[in-house]
Amino acid sequence: MVKLGPSLMCADMGNLQETIVRLDHKRVDFFHFDVMDGRFVPNFTLGPEIVKSLRQLTKASFDIHLMIEEPEKYIDVFIEAGADMISVHAEATIHLQRTLQLIRNRGLKAGVALNPSTPLYNLDYIWDMIDYVVLMTVNPGFAGQKFIPLIYNKIERLNQLIAENNLSIDIQVDGNISYETIPKVLEKGADMLVCGTSSLFKKDKSLEQAMDELNNFMNSRCSTAES
Amino acid sequence: MVKLGPSLMCADMGNLQETIVRLDHKRVDFFHFDVMDGRFVPNFTLGPEIVKSLRQLTKASFDIHLMIEEPEKYIDVFIEAGADMISVHAEATIHLQRTLQLIRNRGLKAGVALNPSTPLYNLDYIWDMIDYVVLMTVNPGFAGQKFIPLIYNKIERLNQLIAENNLSIDIQVDGNISYETIPKVLEKGADMLVCGTSSLFKKDKSLEQAMDELNNFMNSRCSTAES
Amino acid sequence: MVKLGPSLMCADMGNLQETIVRLDHKRVDFFHFDVMDGRFVPNFTLGPEIVKSLRQLTKASFDIHLMIEEPEKYIDVFIEAGADMISVHAEATIHLQRTLQLIRNRGLKAGVALNPSTPLYNLDYIWDMIDYVVLMTVNPGFAGQKFIPLIYNKIERLNQLIAENNLSIDIQVDGNISYETIPKVLEKGADMLVCGTSSLFKKDKSLEQAMDELNNFMNSRCSTAES
Amino acid sequence: MVKLGPSLMCADMGNLQETIVRLDHKRVDFFHFDVMDGRFVPNFTLGPEIVKSLRQLTKASFDIHLMIEEPEKYIDVFIEAGADMISVHAEATIHLQRTLQLIRNRGLKAGVALNPSTPLYNLDYIWDMIDYVVLMTVNPGFAGQKFIPLIYNKIERLNQLIAENNLSIDIQVDGNISYETIPKVLEKGADMLVCGTSSLFKKDKSLEQAMDELNNFMNSRCSTAES
Amino acid sequence: MVKLGPSLMCADMGNLQETIVRLDHKRVDFFHFDVMDGRFVPNFTLGPEIVKSLRQLTKASFDIHLMIEEPEKYIDVFIEAGADMISVHAEATIHLQRTLQLIRNRGLKAGVALNPSTPLYNLDYIWDMIDYVVLMTVNPGFAGQKFIPLIYNKIERLNQLIAENNLSIDIQVDGNISYETIPKVLEKGADMLVCGTSSLFKKDKSLEQAMDELNNFMNSRCSTAES
Amino acid sequence: MVKLGPSLMCADMGNLQETIVRLDHKRVDFFHFDVMDGRFVPNFTLGPEIVKSLRQLTKASFDIHLMIEEPEKYIDVFIEAGADMISVHAEATIHLQRTLQLIRNRGLKAGVALNPSTPLYNLDYIWDMIDYVVLMTVNPGFAGQKFIPLIYNKIERLNQLIAENNLSIDIQVDGNISYETIPKVLEKGADMLVCGTSSLFKKDKSLEQAMDELNNFMNSRCSTAES
Repeated sequence: MVKLGPSLMCADMGNLQETIVRLDHKRVDFFHFDVMDGRFVPNFTLGPEIVKSLRQLTKASFDIHLMIEEPEKYIDVFIEAGADMISVHAEATIHLQRTLQLIRNRGLKAGVALNPSTPLYNLDYIWDMIDYVVLMTVNPGFAGQKFIPLIYNKIERLNQLIAENNLSIDIQVDGNISYETIPKVLEKGADMLVCGTSSLFKKDKSLEQAMDELNNFMNSRCSTAES
Repeated sequence: MVKLGPSLMCADMGNLQETIVRLDHKRVDFFHFDVMDGRFVPNFTLGPEIVKSLRQLTKASFDIHLMIEEPEKYIDVFIEAGADMISVHAEATIHLQRTLQLIRNRGLKAGVALNPSTPLYNLDYIWDMIDYVVLMTVNPGFAGQKFIPLIYNKIERLNQLIAENNLSIDIQVDGNISYETIPKVLEKGADMLVCGTSSLFKKDKSLEQAMDELNNFMNSRCSTAES
Repeated sequence: MVKLGPSLMCADMGNLQETIVRLDHKRVDFFHFDVMDGRFVPNFTLGPEIVKSLRQLTKASFDIHLMIEEPEKYIDVFIEAGADMISVHAEATIHLQRTLQLIRNRGLKAGVALNPSTPLYNLDYIWDMIDYVVLMTVNPGFAGQKFIPLIYNKIERLNQLIAENNLSIDIQVDGNISYETIPKVLEKGADMLVCGTSSLFKKDKSLEQAMDELNNFMNSRCSTAES
Repeated sequence: MVKLGPSLMCADMGNLQETIVRLDHKRVDFFHFDVMDGRFVPNFTLGPEIVKSLRQLTKASFDIHLMIEEPEKYIDVFIEAGADMISVHAEATIHLQRTLQLIRNRGLKAGVALNPSTPLYNLDYIWDMIDYVVLMTVNPGFAGQKFIPLIYNKIERLNQLIAENNLSIDIQVDGNISYETIPKVLEKGADMLVCGTSSLFKKDKSLEQAMDELNNFMNSRCSTAES
Repeated sequence: MVKLGPSLMCADMGNLQETIVRLDHKRVDFFHFDVMDGRFVPNFTLGPEIVKSLRQLTKASFDIHLMIEEPEKYIDVFIEAGADMISVHAEATIHLQRTLQLIRNRGLKAGVALNPSTPLYNLDYIWDMIDYVVLMTVNPGFAGQKFIPLIYNKIERLNQLIAENNLSIDIQVDGNISYETIPKVLEKGADMLVCGTSSLFKKDKSLEQAMDELNNFMNSRCSTAES
Repeated sequence: MVKLGPSLMCADMGNLQETIVRLDHKRVDFFHFDVMDGRFVPNFTLGPEIVKSLRQLTKASFDIHLMIEEPEKYIDVFIEAGADMISVHAEATIHLQRTLQLIRNRGLKAGVALNPSTPLYNLDYIWDMIDYVVLMTVNPGFAGQKFIPLIYNKIERLNQLIAENNLSIDIQVDGNISYETIPKVLEKGADMLVCGTSSLFKKDKSLEQAMDELNNFMNSRCSTAES
């Protein structure tokens, strides 16, 4: 079952409580928070206080994507703020195994995120510590960028590797997830879709409308697939 | 005339639009935004998208405090987001003059922020590029810390230096600004007060009530001073 | 058709205009400029002003090899100075895809350079963004070092990967390219030869003489190959 | 023939001379020194003066494991202090080939160490410069951690690669080497065992007793294997 | 009363337990431990395990001199190992006040160390958080260097500042403290002498002999001074 | 006697040999080389090979201005290339004393360079190791910037400090040295003028003409001053 998660950096960021409440009335599997440090990616977004302020408003999973260097230093802070899942970049730490173990030991799901150019071989000896892999489908740091076509192959290859090894690992795709790219990423094996300005946060539609359309689109695809 | 500015990292950060609107009905001279990078200070707070989301709601000045390394890289981003004043830390860049000049050239007020232990001598050759100095009165990075008493001397000395040189530079104090510390920082020469959990964002009072009390306190002090 | 390019860091660096003019009378496919930052490699060489000073003297391609950290910061500077091709090191940036895209978007050829020990797997998801791969055949930073034999295998394997995927990507080899190593690197599949002190800039020969001999050597190899 | 080496960071570190002398009476193939910089790993242990102080007490090999960034800067210092073998982390330098060559050129054995999550592909183009590979079987930095099970596969795969390429490279395993894990790592192909608190430095046994038991255990395994 | 402290990086570092025991029979006011990270200074020495191994052998103060970057990260580790006093370099952290406060809050004495070229103005706003100042009288990192004459002025000026402000702060001098330099540093106002190869750890004398001579020298100076 | 030195980064950088030869026929006291690393300043210029290529062409002093981080690593390289004087930035190293000593020990003149905003107090304890101070009069990194007026005070104050202490230290000024600024910097006490695009390298004049005019201007000032 494919999971949908709004990317809060694409919402109206001065009013996230309302965003959460309104989306929580619809089917939302997880909320995706991008944390940036101005170094790993050239931007800043939000911190633990914002996560904390939203935590009581929904039971959906809070998925924290740490786009920061040395993420091991901030795991506990975001757990305390209310995270259910945390992903860290393979390019951001030389102690990837330790960092994932730390997340797992606290009872959360642990994810590894990979920049578009980062090879899958970085996962070779951490398969048993991963609950999900975040494949960046655009270069990280900003909303509104274009899907990088070669990443379709990467999703497919990752899906193969997971199947070959009989693993239970979700593939999350993040960046330019739209009505055009969704069918293709699902075909290649994506399990979790991070939804931003390309599908959910649209200027010409209410949040509810956009979420309904997205859920309908997903349902129709499923029924087609099943039939 | 002393200026008051709410510190937005102390507000309910998932609901900043409402905070801005409610405070804008009261006397607010500026809104203070702390931007953190997880390196210069061990925390994360907010980024340009949040500033942008709030910009249309008030005419009060937006004062951006960059608690980040290499602040020169992010000046333009925060100007575009709606900043009126930007302060950068003397400890965070070796190109302080260039960075202040960049802020000034764009038509904003330029500030220099100093950590508690940083000496005033760092200002010796940039007096003509500064509109305000931010004296950290606690160690930067978190709300809820205690005022460092030696900083009273620092405010006093800075005030002397400004007077001796016939300069028109505001002294902003940031950290644990409360009913207890306000009289003392004013006596020493502070001009701008950043108001956080010690004076404005209180669990037992509404924002309006707290802001009224604070304004009353300031007014009564003034009338006393004038009489 | 194999391409030859003089490595200007091996020329008389106080007199590069003359070097360019004299070599331009002979067959030169590209001029190779090594830019160093004292960190990625332990040396300094030249900057954009030198490139600019030489630009009008020849129509040959200017190939800039950025041996620097965070090369994304200097792409525009070197394009403005007159670059036609820019290569960046895979070890020097975590945003390789973005950096290559930036080079391509400006209309230049984009290259990825790999240190001797860096595996080819780093190219797995950027094949479509690469015009050429620079395989360092010595450790980068200085002239006059010895060819690392295991790199012959790397050229061969890269050549296979390019063929298997039906790609049109040039293999540039850089370091100790001599009459001894040229036949072997060509046999393995190299397309572009960076020529330095081992073949072109020789104390006992004029530049013209050395260039003629090198061109003759290349031609005789070709005619042999064709016959 | 499997080699055993005490890990001196697990000994009584205020009294290493005695440790060396007492172990030297038993069979000890090498002494293992972990050097830490507080950055590559979050701890500090020892430096060249300690190595120097112990050098005259034994003829066993001194194996220096540099758990530091930019290890190339400290190769000569540790050689002068008495090193026979030096291993550097692939994650710690972008000039791995040059660093290994430097160690080899000085007449020492050169090793590459890999953190648990680091893939074996990093060795692809340095096979000819390696005398041994250190596979971290726990996360580096502290004594007393648990063996990471997926590393058994890594030992096995590395052993295959070495065999396929007809290489003569030792596999050193470092971290939680105990009576429980030794049989498994040997089965997978380990050649050098770094022995710490899990096997050799035990509170309830003298050093001599622990070393004898360990040697007996190894001998009995061998005779079983031979028969 | 002037205090003497052996610098353990100058002792036989493979045998520190014996050093401690032998010196503890003589008058020793504190033991001085230099911790190095290979970055702040170009060397490595010892870590918390060594401190721990020596802690039970003496009641003298353990004085830890952190010659490392970001010392705030390692305060707790060395406190747990047995430190009584910790000094950190003003050049090594932008959060000097916070770091000193952290040391004080744990009940230890807090010191600030200054490299030879670092001006005293760095102490301007931390006087109330300092128990001692370490003036480096040689460049940090190695034993056996020469006293820098201008530092006599620095001791004198620091002494004046302490007196003018009625403070109770010790001046520790570290580097080339010998029979030649001791009278001068005492005259200028030093309170704590770190004794290394220039006075205490001599090849031609036993430790006990050297310590006795040093104590005699100090006593004779005192009686002269008193008479 | 005021000294003039052409700034070679302002010359035609592809043809520096000719520049040197032509200027050497005129009165030139020193040639000024700016070395940049892309980090300390956001640009690249030249390296040791260029210095070496020019060394034989003149007897004038070669003055190397290292606008790089950790300059201590490159002192020897530039000495070997032909430097007579080397200046390093106070902001670029925490081991300023050691670095100056290293330059002096090799028999060269040692200089300290200060960015516009850097206070003079950084010189407090290195007076005896300095032959010249480079006061940046623009922000470093590029040609063609405007003189920062507050630096006139800095020259004056530095001049006072040197006089008060009876020191023999030259004040070098670097940045926008023109016919307009020269009289003022000389009045304040500058001794060495780095001449670039504002005075010497002009599009509308030959090098010889510009140098003659500059020398005439200097001479007329002197004779006026003497009369």
